[in-house]
Amino acid sequence: MERIFATYLIETPLAVEKAAAILAGEQSSGTFIEVPGETEELKQRFAARVEKITPLETVNEPSLPSQRKSAGKFQRAEVVVSWSVENMGCNLPTLVSTVQGNLYELSQFSGLKLMDLEVPASYAEYFSGPKFGIAGCRKLTGVSGRPLIGTIIKPSIGMTPKQTAALVKVLVEAGIDFIKDDELMANPPHSPFNDRVDAVLRVINDHAEDTGKKVMYAFNISDELDAMLEHYDKLVDSGASCAMVSLNSVGLTGVKKICDLGKLAIHGHRNGWGALNRHPLLGIEFPAYQKIWRLAGVDQIHVNGIANKFWESDDSVVRSIEACLKPMFSGFSILPVVSSGQWGGQACETYRRTKTVDLLYMAGGGIMAHPDGPAAGVRSLQKWWEAAVEGLTLEQAAEKYPELRKSVEKFGKKTG
Amino acid sequence: MERIFATYLIETPLAVEKAAAILAGEQSSGTFIEVPGETEELKQRFAARVEKITPLETVNEPSLPSQRKSAGKFQRAEVVVSWSVENMGCNLPTLVSTVQGNLYELSQFSGLKLMDLEVPASYAEYFSGPKFGIAGCRKLTGVSGRPLIGTIIKPSIGMTPKQTAALVKVLVEAGIDFIKDDELMANPPHSPFNDRVDAVLRVINDHAEDTGKKVMYAFNISDELDAMLEHYDKLVDSGASCAMVSLNSVGLTGVKKICDLGKLAIHGHRNGWGALNRHPLLGIEFPAYQKIWRLAGVDQIHVNGIANKFWESDDSVVRSIEACLKPMFSGFSILPVVSSGQWGGQACETYRRTKTVDLLYMAGGGIMAHPDGPAAGVRSLQKWWEAAVEGLTLEQAAEKYPELRKSVEKFGKKTG
Repeated sequence: MERIFATYLIETPLAVEKAAAILAGEQSSGTFIEVPGETEELKQRFAARVEKITPLETVNEPSLPSQRKSAGKFQRAEVVVSWSVENMGCNLPTLVSTVQGNLYELSQFSGLKLMDLEVPASYAEYFSGPKFGIAGCRKLTGVSGRPLIGTIIKPSIGMTPKQTAALVKVLVEAGIDFIKDDELMANPPHSPFNDRVDAVLRVINDHAEDTGKKVMYAFNISDELDAMLEHYDKLVDSGASCAMVSLNSVGLTGVKKICDLGKLAIHGHRNGWGALNRHPLLGIEFPAYQKIWRLAGVDQIHVNGIANKFWESDDSVVRSIEACLKPMFSGFSILPVVSSGQWGGQACETYRRTKTVDLLYMAGGGIMAHPDGPAAGVRSLQKWWEAAVEGLTLEQAAEKYPELRKSVEKFGKKTG
Repeated sequence: MERIFATYLIETPLAVEKAAAILAGEQSSGTFIEVPGETEELKQRFAARVEKITPLETVNEPSLPSQRKSAGKFQRAEVVVSWSVENMGCNLPTLVSTVQGNLYELSQFSGLKLMDLEVPASYAEYFSGPKFGIAGCRKLTGVSGRPLIGTIIKPSIGMTPKQTAALVKVLVEAGIDFIKDDELMANPPHSPFNDRVDAVLRVINDHAEDTGKKVMYAFNISDELDAMLEHYDKLVDSGASCAMVSLNSVGLTGVKKICDLGKLAIHGHRNGWGALNRHPLLGIEFPAYQKIWRLAGVDQIHVNGIANKFWESDDSVVRSIEACLKPMFSGFSILPVVSSGQWGGQACETYRRTKTVDLLYMAGGGIMAHPDGPAAGVRSLQKWWEAAVEGLTLEQAAEKYPELRKSVEKFGKKTG
């Protein structure tokens, strides 16, 4: 029988072997007192197995609080646990409850983080994965050989559909490939969804008719399920190519239902991610997280960016991009969305470290606040990526291409 | 215009006023460089407001890692922030993205936890809330004047529908009020959902016909949305009264869709909660969390238990029970589900601290592993609650009621 493998970083005051056995027991057949029915045969077939333990450093203080009073050392380790696929079948929420679930609350752990996840080959048949992925998003936007250049409508909230459409017109004429709603903007009284779609798509569709270039706009449909389905249909009927969902706020079953409809590329925003990830010994790491969303069928997922405005390190961002670009089964392609404080200058370091242009590269103020206007902002971002692919550093690029200097002067201190 | 209020516990190397202003800006109209369109009028209408700052202690080390290098002290504070309801309208996922969202990632914070949430009166009209709540669950089970006594099917996984039904028969005949599937058991190949429903409900319905007592069984429907809807219909058609969902794994929109159907009481399992809550300065506290699920319409929610097997303190459990019992608007009643390592003896302390019997009190091994069998286990739990309401301590109860002594001898060390 096929098995599911989960890799954890743990910290425990117990012997690591004992702690790992408790984890496996809690997430399969265990309870605090043996009960009738828990036969040896049943255990053999359904019990989770500890596959591997790699001891790491010890620490003097527990990373997380516990009622358990422990003197002495806390041992860290990497632990791989497996389950028979027979335990949950092809059921994503139950997979999540199995590999995450109650185990974060176990007092025998002073730290526990899900680092990675391997699902069996049969999942590739059951789940259809992203319907568009990298190739599909390139096809929808007509962009090849460089990252898709995108931006976010700012201010996040407060603008009427008409004001939003006016801004979209500026951006579309500036040569942008992709625009998205902010995650704070979905269907508020001051910008009703349908009105915004009509106003924005009129601009985008007109521009496509005139120029042949169809800009992808990720409309934020995050809402209750029926509203999301209505908004999705509205988008399809209006000729849109993309819908955005806030993954953590909408949740797994709602997101998968939307992805399964298959007519729009799905832009997955990971707001709320910090709560799940920021502590080094609690929650989930991105390599595991993005696999769950690929199984659900998300086409684009946020990975933050080099020299971002948030807490995350460049190493972590690079690892996230690599995780997205690594094939899952032989496909399930997902486009990494680079954003947060990006203005173009980070292209050099992003390319140096990841050697890819398969990105949706998002800049907000970096485009709209460019000294020579939004069109120069978009051209500047494209030029930065040309320079990056040439192998230039930020300094070399600014030296070689005079048109990049203005953005360094305006935004460069932000990457310091 | 009505406003939404969120209370945070924060920790920051900055002046608290400055940090709070950054939080409010990020979650309403802010970006890293000022953009056209962010007018004073727009800011006035849509900007989040810092309503109150209560400085707390300072610490020498940051609670969470950050790229921001800071020497010196980190100030903690309680901060109340408000938003106009015009920012998001009646949209639960966007409310979550607004009050949680990106702010956990801000490098200006070395700790941030959402402590509580106040939503405006208009939400009480838009959202219908729990369809059954405490009174409805009492009516469905015919239990009044004491907690509903419940148990979990163990072993969690591995049993066939027939084996599960045989165990249900024992429990039903023992006088139990409520039984639930484990969160690891939904619709696996070895226990197909429909077969389990048929087998279990045959026992429960026969028993109801014979005795007039209908036991509530929370079938775990957690799955993809269409599967959940099918399973829900199956339950309604088969005469079930309750469905269980894993709140965090299924997610907000899927859970609300199920709750809105309104024909079954919804048992909300909070597995995965530890990842959101265990760190004192990251994530969300239960008073805020349970309000989101009451808005979604969940009827029963897990709160852990006194002297539980997990890491959570009794104080935290008591506060969670109190949060559930506090009316939201003038209703939105939700039944707190006490579980984890419960065997009856904790009833005394639970009642002493909460003065309520409006609980679903769950014991696993405490019933099935009772020295005199499951029927004695159920009777023992009821007796413990009588003693608790009398105002007795565990020791006094065991002294006064000889039939309770056996459970103290068998399980008592677990509460030490």
